[in-house]
Amino acid sequence: MIYLDNAATTQIDSDVLDAMLPYLKGSFGNSQSQHAFGRTAADAVLNARDKIAKLLGCRSEELYFVSGGTEANNTALKGICLAKGSGHILVSAIEHPSMIESAKDMAAQGFEVTFINPDENGVITPQTVESAIKEDTIFCAVMAANNETGVIQPVKEIGEICRKHKVFYFADCVQYAATNQLSVDFCDGLSISAHKLYGPKGAGLLYIKSGNKFSRLISGGMQERGFRGGTVNVAAVAGLSAAVEKAVKNQADEAEKIRKVKEHFVNRVLKEIHDTHLNGGGKILPSHANISFDGCDGENVLFALDLKGIAVSTGSACSAGAVNPSHVLTAMGLSPQRVKSAVRFSFGKHNTLSEADEAVEALKNIVSKIRSI
Amino acid sequence: MIYLDNAATTQIDSDVLDAMLPYLKGSFGNSQSQHAFGRTAADAVLNARDKIAKLLGCRSEELYFVSGGTEANNTALKGICLAKGSGHILVSAIEHPSMIESAKDMAAQGFEVTFINPDENGVITPQTVESAIKEDTIFCAVMAANNETGVIQPVKEIGEICRKHKVFYFADCVQYAATNQLSVDFCDGLSISAHKLYGPKGAGLLYIKSGNKFSRLISGGMQERGFRGGTVNVAAVAGLSAAVEKAVKNQADEAEKIRKVKEHFVNRVLKEIHDTHLNGGGKILPSHANISFDGCDGENVLFALDLKGIAVSTGSACSAGAVNPSHVLTAMGLSPQRVKSAVRFSFGKHNTLSEADEAVEALKNIVSKIRSI
Repeated sequence: MIYLDNAATTQIDSDVLDAMLPYLKGSFGNSQSQHAFGRTAADAVLNARDKIAKLLGCRSEELYFVSGGTEANNTALKGICLAKGSGHILVSAIEHPSMIESAKDMAAQGFEVTFINPDENGVITPQTVESAIKEDTIFCAVMAANNETGVIQPVKEIGEICRKHKVFYFADCVQYAATNQLSVDFCDGLSISAHKLYGPKGAGLLYIKSGNKFSRLISGGMQERGFRGGTVNVAAVAGLSAAVEKAVKNQADEAEKIRKVKEHFVNRVLKEIHDTHLNGGGKILPSHANISFDGCDGENVLFALDLKGIAVSTGSACSAGAVNPSHVLTAMGLSPQRVKSAVRFSFGKHNTLSEADEAVEALKNIVSKIRSI
Repeated sequence: MIYLDNAATTQIDSDVLDAMLPYLKGSFGNSQSQHAFGRTAADAVLNARDKIAKLLGCRSEELYFVSGGTEANNTALKGICLAKGSGHILVSAIEHPSMIESAKDMAAQGFEVTFINPDENGVITPQTVESAIKEDTIFCAVMAANNETGVIQPVKEIGEICRKHKVFYFADCVQYAATNQLSVDFCDGLSISAHKLYGPKGAGLLYIKSGNKFSRLISGGMQERGFRGGTVNVAAVAGLSAAVEKAVKNQADEAEKIRKVKEHFVNRVLKEIHDTHLNGGGKILPSHANISFDGCDGENVLFALDLKGIAVSTGSACSAGAVNPSHVLTAMGLSPQRVKSAVRFSFGKHNTLSEADEAVEALKNIVSKIRSI
């Protein structure tokens, strides 16, 4: 089995699981409880928060543990906007569905929403952001790197523009964080998800710079200083912390290794299979390659690869089951044929050059067969 | 160590953890992915949903996997009300903070909210529910059993009244499910939480009877048929399913064992420590005992017991950190002194008679010392 769908999810590292297991076994306390069992749990949550804050360069009180990237994105967009009460929202057209749909929810509640299109490379340019900002713009979401193409966005420049215009700038860093050093200095808010970093599902992190008011999404007890109700998933938090710490520690080496394997794969595919196109340009994550195969349906390529034990995806996993073509590639102005023939290959730290070669050979065979039908 | 705080959380059973581990190790796929890794994950989610549906007597499509009881309660109250658009909401004054705070959120958005007080036993009577229903009442929340007192509510009668008046009736069953057979036939919606059933934190279940529209709380991809965005926490779902299955299978015997230990404890405390009062009356869960110790501060009793390795709580764990006295005991009309002197003891299947005896001896000593200061 060759797993080339690391953008959808990754396997938990065994030492990350080891960091979680105490809280799935004997140290089972509720972190809100005021006794020894509770203190052990609370200490784990406190340590995780402090550790991640140090790694990201922010204050512990600026971090909120939630159930995943999607909840973090919902909380940020809806929370900031509802706390402001009214105004104009900017959201890039290539955001993850959690951001796009949250923006639509706010539009239904009377907020004005502008979706910003990328250029043909899949880049949201700082100029388009600045020209879309209005007098009453309150929130801007442009992800650090796109989940389908891996195209890295000019977040520093966008952050500066937003700061200048006093617009809250939020960066979904769910895909970016796996292969890039992360700090909070370029934005007002960001999200990451443990299961994209060889950590557990069910663990997300939301950063909101202090001084920014937001309404909570999930109301309840005093967990997360009252901003996120619900018993804290202590094991998941411990896993998130271990995954983030490990990612940061080994990032440069791992990213370089992933890049080499991916580039080897992409170079061979583009050279050895005619009429193939890499979607997205400029800077692309070391992990991602979104490739269209003329004359093929991307889903058919996926299914044929699956039969050979090779796991890839068309669009994002979150969109699976949806009948619509990729909103990301469509927003880039690609033709419907090119969108329909796209396949996402996302590499991780466990992939090898020989796996890449095996995938290329399988693809050559599959694409040629599909084209000959 | 003696753990008498099973209402706050429970230790995961080793066989429940075993049911989770495959999805924390090799079977790490995203349940939305359309390849072998994804199918294995999707099968786990499908099987869990079907299994729980069968146990609860509902259709699989009526169940939604969420991150916990709090998210389930938020989704139900806010989702049903926002889908209706306007109207009057009934919420019992003894609900969990997730329900009370969700109702307040809706009040801030223009919905009319009535909080129904219990009688002095902590019971929400069907009569008070019926007399509070108005022409435009759309939603009623009365939990199946209270988390602080364990008082079981007349949910069948309340359900019938709501059906008669065409009001959506939601029952928070988070505490009730641990020691009582559960089916969905008495209500239009209910919530349970795995970590109260010897399952993992981060796993909740929401039932919404088909035909009832609700707005999603967390927007995003097509997970949970579009009603709950975010990568499904497959391991947590597998754990929830195993925990529910096990609870149902062993419930009658376990509940009887828990009741015996708890009653032994309560009888001794009330007999051997003077000026103590059991809070709540009528039917009480086998697991819960909320006892006030005249002349003591409940928190001091908690801290002193903790020093002896015995874990209990005052109010709910979710309220820990809050400075307010218990809203549940206050709503029952108990005096501030009696509220302040209350301690919650919640028993689970691992507690023994000798643990109960040890706790009684510790309490006798502690209460007498505190009273003599």
